[in-house]
Amino acid sequence: MFTSQDAHWMARALELARRGRFTTSPNPAVGCVIVKDGERVGEGFHRRAGGPHAEVFALREAGAAARGATAYVTLEPCSHHGRTPPCAQGLIDAGVARVVAAMVDPNPQVAGRGLAMLQAAGIQAEAGLMTEAAEAVNVGFLHRMRTGRPFVTLKLASSLDGRTALANGESQWITGPAARRDVQRHRAQSCAILSGADTVLTDNAALNVRWGELPASLRHDYAEGELRQPLRIIIDTQNRLHAGLRLFAQPGPVLLLRGWVTGGFGDEVEECVLPQAGNGKLDLELLLDELGRRQLNHLWVEAGATLGGALFGAGLVNELILYQAPMLMGNPARGLLALPEFTAMSQPPRLAWQDCRRVGGDLKLTARVTD
Amino acid sequence: MFTSQDAHWMARALELARRGRFTTSPNPAVGCVIVKDGERVGEGFHRRAGGPHAEVFALREAGAAARGATAYVTLEPCSHHGRTPPCAQGLIDAGVARVVAAMVDPNPQVAGRGLAMLQAAGIQAEAGLMTEAAEAVNVGFLHRMRTGRPFVTLKLASSLDGRTALANGESQWITGPAARRDVQRHRAQSCAILSGADTVLTDNAALNVRWGELPASLRHDYAEGELRQPLRIIIDTQNRLHAGLRLFAQPGPVLLLRGWVTGGFGDEVEECVLPQAGNGKLDLELLLDELGRRQLNHLWVEAGATLGGALFGAGLVNELILYQAPMLMGNPARGLLALPEFTAMSQPPRLAWQDCRRVGGDLKLTARVTD
Repeated sequence: MFTSQDAHWMARALELARRGRFTTSPNPAVGCVIVKDGERVGEGFHRRAGGPHAEVFALREAGAAARGATAYVTLEPCSHHGRTPPCAQGLIDAGVARVVAAMVDPNPQVAGRGLAMLQAAGIQAEAGLMTEAAEAVNVGFLHRMRTGRPFVTLKLASSLDGRTALANGESQWITGPAARRDVQRHRAQSCAILSGADTVLTDNAALNVRWGELPASLRHDYAEGELRQPLRIIIDTQNRLHAGLRLFAQPGPVLLLRGWVTGGFGDEVEECVLPQAGNGKLDLELLLDELGRRQLNHLWVEAGATLGGALFGAGLVNELILYQAPMLMGNPARGLLALPEFTAMSQPPRLAWQDCRRVGGDLKLTARVTD
Repeated sequence: MFTSQDAHWMARALELARRGRFTTSPNPAVGCVIVKDGERVGEGFHRRAGGPHAEVFALREAGAAARGATAYVTLEPCSHHGRTPPCAQGLIDAGVARVVAAMVDPNPQVAGRGLAMLQAAGIQAEAGLMTEAAEAVNVGFLHRMRTGRPFVTLKLASSLDGRTALANGESQWITGPAARRDVQRHRAQSCAILSGADTVLTDNAALNVRWGELPASLRHDYAEGELRQPLRIIIDTQNRLHAGLRLFAQPGPVLLLRGWVTGGFGDEVEECVLPQAGNGKLDLELLLDELGRRQLNHLWVEAGATLGGALFGAGLVNELILYQAPMLMGNPARGLLALPEFTAMSQPPRLAWQDCRRVGGDLKLTARVTD
């Protein structure tokens, strides 16, 4: 049973956890608050993989006051030696009396063992307070732990009538500057960005995070250079990309999935032959398996109707974010998603709306694929 | 200058006005509150054309207490003899000291003369408190007074990717029951519903207000039969409609715009030859002029991509309401609006988002055409 005081402190721990969500990957973002006699004696959050976990910062601040205290953590404390020693042991050594975790860590290396370790040491340890909010902080990490693949968000931008470009291909700009800043924020929060050669060639898109184009609140929290550049993954089946594109001139790593390897793209570019299914076509499932092995938690897809449709058709999209401009482009204009022709209303994939909000002059609609 | 007390009472008057918005057409919905020494001594709202105006109900309740009181009205009191005597005179006769109107009535028969009449009688009369909210109560009436034509709301329903039917025409059901109940509410609030023969024939659509399908809150406020049936206007250029359709079996008046008049549709059906432009094609502007002459304030359009596109292309749509289902139908499916092919991004019509909200499992997006 949890009290309203417990909820109060967990809310604070979640607030702290969120501060790490642009920097902790491939680790989860975690916050911790230590409370003794109704007073907060220590708090902290995980900043960067390889650096101390949230519990370490909080215990350091609490010092001797941790003895007999309650520790609130947004994710079950780890039980294994990774790049840092197990946090469950740290909490035991500090003499805390009680540990409240928002949720069990689905990481197979933890998965309840952290709580068990605490309980074996006589500490009252329980999980399940504000779990939904804790899930939301680490959508990507938790999905990868559960499935071995990154969480895939497909970003789309269209007119009110679902069109992405005029019949002649013109599309700049459908959405306004606020929506484009919001996209920059999502890129900064993602581990990798997936796109296709068409998108890169048509718009000469760099697909990187440009600090100066981020929302002001984010520029306030992070200095230029403090945010990582997500891995840009480009599917270039026909080897159409060339070294002169903006994609290669902007900082940040690139993974090119090509028909064959040619080299000549510079140090930050890794070239791979694209994973093929038996029929010689690009195998998107194999691709996502590989990205999971590379510990990429959250994949942000900015692609055209063909790649977007293929991912969706293969059941690999978890979330869809649509920026919708209040503009009518008409039926001759280009459509949003290439999907096979459906012949009965039971066939089209159905999602569930998560959120709708204004972003500048546009709407931002979020929908999740439900299982 | 208005005080916060003024705003408080005007908010109450607006609340009263809204109660009439399903029944007052072709009149505006108006509310009135009479306040003496900080106490409400009378209130009322207009219920039905031909019945007493809001001021009459409020003055009746106030009786002698109206002397020296302040009257709050959501629309300038009328100054002309219509089916009832002028309300400005009623307020003068009752001896009120002050009249606050949310807005001037753009009706050419009033247009400031109500306020002038009050002022000439020594009453302190002013307009301009909570005008935006007052405008929203009578969108249709005010638009007709200003332009001579009804306010046109185009209702659309689509998938997340802007599709209205599968390639084979199947479309039942894209949106859910809550969205369909919301449509019933809009129909009940409209003076007329415009549609085309295609829609009527494809779905055998009755296009009337079905009390049992209205939202529960509306059924609570109005008994069955108390709500009027809007005029159903069907464009049937090719004379394809026949008397056996559900459209004619359901109660409520119908106006058929046909290639030629045949008769045989029953008492509630008026047949007209459709207004034609010089080129022999349907002239939508002439149609809207005629509907304005018939004192129709708000026209609710439920039509296919062709009629919707034609109205939009002619600049005759004022508002668009899109019910969007979280479903993906893909590019082979049918598009939302037939518009001419645009060749530059400066050409597509741009609107402004007014509102976005959840209605059951769907989204309801409202956008206005800005001038």
